[in-house]
Amino acid sequence: MPKKLRLAVNTGGGDAPGLNAVLRALTLSALNRGYEVVGIRKGYLGLLDTTQLVPLTFDSVRGITRLGGSILGTNNRGNPLGIRVEENGQERYVDVSDQAVKNFHRLGFDGLIAIGGDGSLKIAAGLAKKGIPIIAVPKTIDNDLASTVMTFGFDTAVATATEAIDKLHSTAESHDRVMVVEVMGRNCGWIALSSGIAGGADVILLPEIPYTIERVCQKIMDREASGRHFSIVVCAEGAAPLGGRMSLLEEAHDGHDARLGGVAPVVAKQIELRTGKESRSIVLGHLQRGGQPTPFDRLLSLRFGATAVRMASEGKWGHMVTYSPSGMGMVTLEEAIAEPGKVPVDCDTVRTARELGVSFGD
Amino acid sequence: MPKKLRLAVNTGGGDAPGLNAVLRALTLSALNRGYEVVGIRKGYLGLLDTTQLVPLTFDSVRGITRLGGSILGTNNRGNPLGIRVEENGQERYVDVSDQAVKNFHRLGFDGLIAIGGDGSLKIAAGLAKKGIPIIAVPKTIDNDLASTVMTFGFDTAVATATEAIDKLHSTAESHDRVMVVEVMGRNCGWIALSSGIAGGADVILLPEIPYTIERVCQKIMDREASGRHFSIVVCAEGAAPLGGRMSLLEEAHDGHDARLGGVAPVVAKQIELRTGKESRSIVLGHLQRGGQPTPFDRLLSLRFGATAVRMASEGKWGHMVTYSPSGMGMVTLEEAIAEPGKVPVDCDTVRTARELGVSFGD
Amino acid sequence: MPKKLRLAVNTGGGDAPGLNAVLRALTLSALNRGYEVVGIRKGYLGLLDTTQLVPLTFDSVRGITRLGGSILGTNNRGNPLGIRVEENGQERYVDVSDQAVKNFHRLGFDGLIAIGGDGSLKIAAGLAKKGIPIIAVPKTIDNDLASTVMTFGFDTAVATATEAIDKLHSTAESHDRVMVVEVMGRNCGWIALSSGIAGGADVILLPEIPYTIERVCQKIMDREASGRHFSIVVCAEGAAPLGGRMSLLEEAHDGHDARLGGVAPVVAKQIELRTGKESRSIVLGHLQRGGQPTPFDRLLSLRFGATAVRMASEGKWGHMVTYSPSGMGMVTLEEAIAEPGKVPVDCDTVRTARELGVSFGD
Amino acid sequence: MPKKLRLAVNTGGGDAPGLNAVLRALTLSALNRGYEVVGIRKGYLGLLDTTQLVPLTFDSVRGITRLGGSILGTNNRGNPLGIRVEENGQERYVDVSDQAVKNFHRLGFDGLIAIGGDGSLKIAAGLAKKGIPIIAVPKTIDNDLASTVMTFGFDTAVATATEAIDKLHSTAESHDRVMVVEVMGRNCGWIALSSGIAGGADVILLPEIPYTIERVCQKIMDREASGRHFSIVVCAEGAAPLGGRMSLLEEAHDGHDARLGGVAPVVAKQIELRTGKESRSIVLGHLQRGGQPTPFDRLLSLRFGATAVRMASEGKWGHMVTYSPSGMGMVTLEEAIAEPGKVPVDCDTVRTARELGVSFGD
Repeated sequence: MPKKLRLAVNTGGGDAPGLNAVLRALTLSALNRGYEVVGIRKGYLGLLDTTQLVPLTFDSVRGITRLGGSILGTNNRGNPLGIRVEENGQERYVDVSDQAVKNFHRLGFDGLIAIGGDGSLKIAAGLAKKGIPIIAVPKTIDNDLASTVMTFGFDTAVATATEAIDKLHSTAESHDRVMVVEVMGRNCGWIALSSGIAGGADVILLPEIPYTIERVCQKIMDREASGRHFSIVVCAEGAAPLGGRMSLLEEAHDGHDARLGGVAPVVAKQIELRTGKESRSIVLGHLQRGGQPTPFDRLLSLRFGATAVRMASEGKWGHMVTYSPSGMGMVTLEEAIAEPGKVPVDCDTVRTARELGVSFGD
Repeated sequence: MPKKLRLAVNTGGGDAPGLNAVLRALTLSALNRGYEVVGIRKGYLGLLDTTQLVPLTFDSVRGITRLGGSILGTNNRGNPLGIRVEENGQERYVDVSDQAVKNFHRLGFDGLIAIGGDGSLKIAAGLAKKGIPIIAVPKTIDNDLASTVMTFGFDTAVATATEAIDKLHSTAESHDRVMVVEVMGRNCGWIALSSGIAGGADVILLPEIPYTIERVCQKIMDREASGRHFSIVVCAEGAAPLGGRMSLLEEAHDGHDARLGGVAPVVAKQIELRTGKESRSIVLGHLQRGGQPTPFDRLLSLRFGATAVRMASEGKWGHMVTYSPSGMGMVTLEEAIAEPGKVPVDCDTVRTARELGVSFGD
Repeated sequence: MPKKLRLAVNTGGGDAPGLNAVLRALTLSALNRGYEVVGIRKGYLGLLDTTQLVPLTFDSVRGITRLGGSILGTNNRGNPLGIRVEENGQERYVDVSDQAVKNFHRLGFDGLIAIGGDGSLKIAAGLAKKGIPIIAVPKTIDNDLASTVMTFGFDTAVATATEAIDKLHSTAESHDRVMVVEVMGRNCGWIALSSGIAGGADVILLPEIPYTIERVCQKIMDREASGRHFSIVVCAEGAAPLGGRMSLLEEAHDGHDARLGGVAPVVAKQIELRTGKESRSIVLGHLQRGGQPTPFDRLLSLRFGATAVRMASEGKWGHMVTYSPSGMGMVTLEEAIAEPGKVPVDCDTVRTARELGVSFGD
Repeated sequence: MPKKLRLAVNTGGGDAPGLNAVLRALTLSALNRGYEVVGIRKGYLGLLDTTQLVPLTFDSVRGITRLGGSILGTNNRGNPLGIRVEENGQERYVDVSDQAVKNFHRLGFDGLIAIGGDGSLKIAAGLAKKGIPIIAVPKTIDNDLASTVMTFGFDTAVATATEAIDKLHSTAESHDRVMVVEVMGRNCGWIALSSGIAGGADVILLPEIPYTIERVCQKIMDREASGRHFSIVVCAEGAAPLGGRMSLLEEAHDGHDARLGGVAPVVAKQIELRTGKESRSIVLGHLQRGGQPTPFDRLLSLRFGATAVRMASEGKWGHMVTYSPSGMGMVTLEEAIAEPGKVPVDCDTVRTARELGVSFGD
């Protein structure tokens, strides 16, 4: 008779639409197998503080598939491999991972399902080496992991961004304006690319394709010349001007507190200075992290969650769940963090955008 | 036999969800009466340039009820009573209204239906005095006209703002943050009040209720003390600190280019400085002007449009259409612009908010 | 010092979007006044069964404004003034209201806030006469109460119906079909009228305006003749053919089990038989009762809830809360149930529909 | 210098969300290459009637990405390889394909891009053999083609179905009812499976997994026993009872006109008879074909359209465009129609559903 497992679950990093669906799938698949599941609040640090344990039951996951946020909370900045401590005005990092591992075993857990992004995956790999059986579920709405075709939350983020671009369209047009919309994506432009094409943007700026503001303005003026007196520019937060970001930021920004704005206000001002066209910007920011997951993301999240428990039942510790249309799969934790996901600059989607007439400012 | 009217229609000012529905209702009600309708692009200035005339037909308004924007465009900055002219580096204002009136009659129009906001209504009143038979349809998503219970576009703007607040909720919570959301409303806080209550805001800042940042922070810290480590602040763009806006803006803002931000970034920074809590802001801006009108706004817009033609058929020139639940009505153009709409500080809705525990920072 | 009230709350009848928002507002306004609130499950019968009592706290209403359904459940068919009992194959009705009243007082309640529709209001009036201090909150998504301008849930039902009509439009057109959409409204056609106009229906059938199928078909063939090869018919579930419903039902229906369909399938078949045009139907049914309330309905619900507690604090027992744009109000329970809400056949909205070219089949 | 192509485009079969986006991408990619594009109304038969030709321009595809329906119409029942003719009360099929091929060449077309489903693909294969250079774009919202990972419109259909299930949930619960929801999928259950899981259905009935009504009822009664007094059953229109569909249909249906209902009403009645629980049904039908495409479907549609023109530019006639996450691809027309898409009964998604506790009635 197979062992009835006692599983711990935690989540790390920022919010992502679909988190609750993952938790529901984890819990139902585990309980339906006769397993126990215990949620650990506060991420990995919850292992050091037993008041943070929450048994997950049929009732606690009822009806949560469609809710944004996470019933476990997602707030977690702590890394047990190096926790930040301030003493006498000085900060230092203390490794408390041995204590975490000890507690994990003392609490009778057979394995940990860790839902998290880049940072959490690295911690997971570290704790796995120290003897905690871990299965990771990737959580990054930027879709920036090469090892999985898609991550949950991405489709919802794209939908939110696309709807925003839709709304800005008619106003940009009626006011003869340039609207610059900043979407998420520090190192990876999938959200900007997908929402930009779906929303009918005229210019899309990605971290992967360095742009010059001159070519951006050229596109805007070309449209002007053909009687289109407005333009929509979608830029990733990590959009990269040729020659480096800082110098351009300095040009228009000059001491601007980054927390008050983003890249888009700068780009808008640069465009206005060069083209003389009224330009406005909006930074969508956290709007993209919240809200109901799309049906696509709900299904994907549920599949991630169910697969993680299936992998646990088969003893596939030390792996991260991955998705491809042909079915869920897995990679080792080391492979998972080896290679970031990037938009290949010659991929079919970029090519489609160019054929539709979109400029990447290059 | 009643005369078959030839009606002109123009729109002035910014975009508003429902504009197309008004145009469709105008056109269908007019054509079904055997009237003619001609759209004038570029607002009142279109009267000076006959290339801007567009006959409106059954086909031209087909399927547009649910579309944002306006098939006539809404771009209009010109006032024929004082059009801005630049000569030798100097600007002056020229009154070309006599020419506009002459053209209006020469083109054989029996009346003009003018859809517009505050500014447009004033021009309408001026042209009416010069002999153009005008019926006005109010267009202000801020709902800031005392003479009508509601204007079209307002419900959609509230819906957009509320959905944004919904999305920010889970993220604010999971990150233990204060989120400050700025919505439209320069002089009138209806959008902030309605979306703030519907979205479950903790603090709502209105132009009508002067606030102090200290009381705002008090509310946030009270929540902190009771275990709620996040807060949502909704502020109107015209939110008014006690003692005047400028001084507070200067405190945190200091030379900040207004086009790069708004009130919300300032408020967020002030909160962060005083409470030590991480605070973020988002300025929804034009998101609120675009997009599909809600079913409520579609119906309201269609009613405004149909009523305007009905009034024309009854010769009620010189009036603006108004809405109240008991039926559409009208006021004279003079009454229409006499009194701005404001949130009464002791109204039932404000009272409801206070009873729910919302702070107005007062 | 005013008394700290101990309030009971129950809900009766079917689901309505906004119920949870009413409960949240009731709870917060009560707790913020230092009152106690206890939810009674199973409607009035819950008064007979103390296992059905649920104290409502800040935590129990957290985040529920935007959720469909009701945290108290809404299932309630029992009337303590005449509860149905089956004995020896015979059914009879037993009055258990004295017991309910006794329990109410024994449990120390100062008043009952009863949220419910037509049937519940009648029970409320009955129990009020027996000495239970009651404030009623109307709950009918049909908007069929003359004493209040609008009831919560109606706007959401209209939005759901309008979105459905939107979706059917392109398909009706691409398939050259007649689509008949049945919406709620047994005795009152507000949902059909509002969604029909907002959704661009060609024919709208209401309980208030008797139609003949011949005139409906005439409209469809007129459209055909002018090159519009499709039509959208929106009918209320209580749409009333001239000469009575039964005969027409029999003509096309003939033994059809009513639970398998509704009015729309019959109307569709009648149209197909008479016009030769392919006709399809859809009965939206419960789709209109569920789902997230619109922001409009959330605000309205919160206002209803807060006002009910305000009225309790002022001792206004025996009244129902009402809404009008100028502010919340109240009527006595007797007035509340005296007059049903109907669409006035010559109201401005009906007139608008006719001017847009909509046929009512009359 | 590569030849400037003159392309014809037609669409066949039913409506699908994304059709307009495909047309926009086709047109923009073609015009940006200096090609000409001509839309042919009425599908293949439009080749026999030159009044059906519509040149596609930048203006004609402006802003249509987000619109449901198709600017070309989709109504097309004609097959030039065997067109139905009625003569003297007798019908026969006439092959007019030679004429269609002749016209195609006479009109100077270099190739035809045919957007269509199963039937259209077969005609395309036939016409390709007769010498028309064809590139096909698959159009089936059922996602029932084995040769492409996904087809456009499917994601939108799943979203519409999931939202409907969401709305039915709270009402099913508050009324203690069984709700049976019928979604599209005559031979292929992807829509039912995806929306059923995402919407939290308790039972999902697919064409691929024969069910018995007894096991369906068993699941419902198991839920009843554990205190869940409601259930949601999602069934594909082609859901297949073990032992054949007809007998079960006859049992409950008995002469019921299929156009008045579907499978769901029958299943609901069977459940009610066996469990004694009140059961209701809704047939979503055409709701799933209409409406705005989701951002996912918009992007997918644009990619399909752009790839088709790219293939034309490379002379890849006789192929159908396919999608996989690694990029767009192609198969020959023969391969395209060789194998229908089915839900593999042991696929990961079915397994996930079972692990979540969903019953397939098997």
